[in-house]
Amino acid sequence: MKEFHSRRRVEFADTDMAGIVHFARFFVFMETAEHELLRALGAEVHFEHEGRTVGWPRVEASCRYLSPARLGDVLDVAVRVLKRGRRSMTYGFTIRCAGRRVAEGRTSTVCCVLDQPTGLEPIPIPASLAEKLGEYLATPAESAADRTPESAKL
Amino acid sequence: MKEFHSRRRVEFADTDMAGIVHFARFFVFMETAEHELLRALGAEVHFEHEGRTVGWPRVEASCRYLSPARLGDVLDVAVRVLKRGRRSMTYGFTIRCAGRRVAEGRTSTVCCVLDQPTGLEPIPIPASLAEKLGEYLATPAESAADRTPESAKL
Amino acid sequence: MKEFHSRRRVEFADTDMAGIVHFARFFVFMETAEHELLRALGAEVHFEHEGRTVGWPRVEASCRYLSPARLGDVLDVAVRVLKRGRRSMTYGFTIRCAGRRVAEGRTSTVCCVLDQPTGLEPIPIPASLAEKLGEYLATPAESAADRTPESAKL
Amino acid sequence: MKEFHSRRRVEFADTDMAGIVHFARFFVFMETAEHELLRALGAEVHFEHEGRTVGWPRVEASCRYLSPARLGDVLDVAVRVLKRGRRSMTYGFTIRCAGRRVAEGRTSTVCCVLDQPTGLEPIPIPASLAEKLGEYLATPAESAADRTPESAKL
Repeated sequence: MKEFHSRRRVEFADTDMAGIVHFARFFVFMETAEHELLRALGAEVHFEHEGRTVGWPRVEASCRYLSPARLGDVLDVAVRVLKRGRRSMTYGFTIRCAGRRVAEGRTSTVCCVLDQPTGLEPIPIPASLAEKLGEYLATPAESAADRTPESAKL
Repeated sequence: MKEFHSRRRVEFADTDMAGIVHFARFFVFMETAEHELLRALGAEVHFEHEGRTVGWPRVEASCRYLSPARLGDVLDVAVRVLKRGRRSMTYGFTIRCAGRRVAEGRTSTVCCVLDQPTGLEPIPIPASLAEKLGEYLATPAESAADRTPESAKL
Repeated sequence: MKEFHSRRRVEFADTDMAGIVHFARFFVFMETAEHELLRALGAEVHFEHEGRTVGWPRVEASCRYLSPARLGDVLDVAVRVLKRGRRSMTYGFTIRCAGRRVAEGRTSTVCCVLDQPTGLEPIPIPASLAEKLGEYLATPAESAADRTPESAKL
Repeated sequence: MKEFHSRRRVEFADTDMAGIVHFARFFVFMETAEHELLRALGAEVHFEHEGRTVGWPRVEASCRYLSPARLGDVLDVAVRVLKRGRRSMTYGFTIRCAGRRVAEGRTSTVCCVLDQPTGLEPIPIPASLAEKLGEYLATPAESAADRTPESAKL
C-alpha cells in the first residue's frame, strides 16, 4: 500500500497544561497531511469546478492516542486512502515520532460545493483527481486489516 | 438516561475558510462540556491525589458531523456517561443548534498521574468521584443503543 | 466611559505546557468580546451591505500580559471604543479575573468588503452602526489616558 | 543586522470565515520562529536550570497586518533581537509571502521559573544563552529604526 508522508515539529501552541500535545491538534495534523497529499497530486484543497467553489468537509473523524507527543518532537504523519467513493474519501493516518506510534486516525470527507447559501452540496469527485487519488488506494484486504479507529455504526 | 448540558456560542476563531466551524473545534467543545460536568460534580479537571497531579488524557476521540455550525450559532452540548471503568471513562456527546443535530461524538479518557517524567501512569478513579459520575451512567442497553461513533477495533 | 463586559471561563484547550493560558488566545478573547458588543448593538459581525459581504479585518493588535490566567478562571473582558474613524475602529480591552488585572489589549479593525477576489476593500462604516458604536466612545481625554498598549509608529 | 528565518505553509485550520489567516495565528507563527531560533542556538524552549523549569512567558505582543495570507501561502518569518535585557528579550518579526510584506510583529518575553505554585518568577538569562542570543542583536540605531509595532506606554 502506497503511503504519503508529511512531517512537522510540535509547536508550543500545540501543547496543553498536561505538558503534551492537545488531543484536538492531531486532527489538524491529519487534515494538513491530507491537504499536502492533494497538493502533491496537483490538486487545490478548495478549487473551482464549473464556476463553483468545491471543498472537502469532513463527515467523520476519529483518533486513537497511543503515546504522548511533546514540544519539539518531529512527527511523521503517514496518509493512505482506505476508501474512494464516488463523492467521498476515507483516509487512514499513522502518526509516529522516531518510529514510536503516537496516534492512529481516520477521516471521511465529502466532495462538496461550498457556496450554497442553504448548506453544502455533495458532488462527484472530478474524474482526474479521483484517478490520481487511486494511486494511494489500499486493496480491500489492506483496508479491512487497517488498524485505524473505524466507526461501527455509520 | 441523565444528561448534562453545556451551552456555547460559535466564535469567529472557531470558523474556517469554508465558512463553518472547523471540524477539530468540536473536540474542544466536547472536552469543555466534559470538564463542566466534572466541575458541576465538584471535581477539578486536574487535581492532587496523594501528592500527585492527576488528569484525564484522552485515549480515543471520534466525531460524526451531521450539519454545519456557523458564526453566532448557540450550541447545546449534551454529555452522558456511556461507560465507567475502574480507570477510564467513556462519554457520549450530542451537539445541537436550535434542536437541529450538528454533531455526535465520543471520547474515552483515562485517569492518569501526569507528573511522571517517563510518561502518563493510569490510576483508579478516586471512589468519591466515580460515585458521582455514576449518576450520569447510561444503562448497558442505553449504552449499546447509543448512536455516537464507536470504534470497532479497539 | 461606557464599557461593554463579556465573560468567559478558561478552557483546557486555552492552556499551554507552562500551565497558563497561551498568550495568543487572549486575542481570541478580545475579538469575541468585540463581536458580542456588535451583537448587543444589533449588528452582525459579517453583514450584507449593498449586496456585498462586509467584515472587520484587523490591521493591528497588541496585548500586554500582567498576570497569568489558568484553567477554570472566569475572565471578565471589558471593551471600550478608543477611536471611531470613518472606516476603522480602535477598541481597548481590559481582562480581569476576580478583580485582578490579567491583560490589557488594543485592536484596530477596518470595515471592509470581503468578497473581492483581489483583496479586501475598505468602505465607510454604515451610518446606523457608527452611531450605535458612538455610545461606547471614549472622550479624547479618556482615550489619551488609556493604558492599553498603543503602537507608536503606525 | 543578523536575522533568523523560519518558513511555514498556511494550513486550513489557520484560516477563518473571511477566507484569510486568522489574526491570532500570526502570534503562533512568531512564537514558533522564536523557538526555532532558540533551538538553532542549541537551547531548549523549556529547560532545567539549577533543578527548576525555566521558560519564556510573554509580557507583551503586538502585530500589524499589512496584507492577507491565504491557504497554501508559504510564509517566511524573519526574527531579530531588538533588545536583550538581563532577564528579558524583545524580538522583532517580519512575515513575508513571496517577498510581499504580510505582517510585522514584536514580542517581549521574560526568562522565568515556571514551577512556582504562586506564579512566575523572573530570573537572569543564563550567561551562555545570553551570549548566543547576542549574535542576533540589532545595534541601538537599528533597533530605534525598527518598524515593528512598539508599545508607547509600557
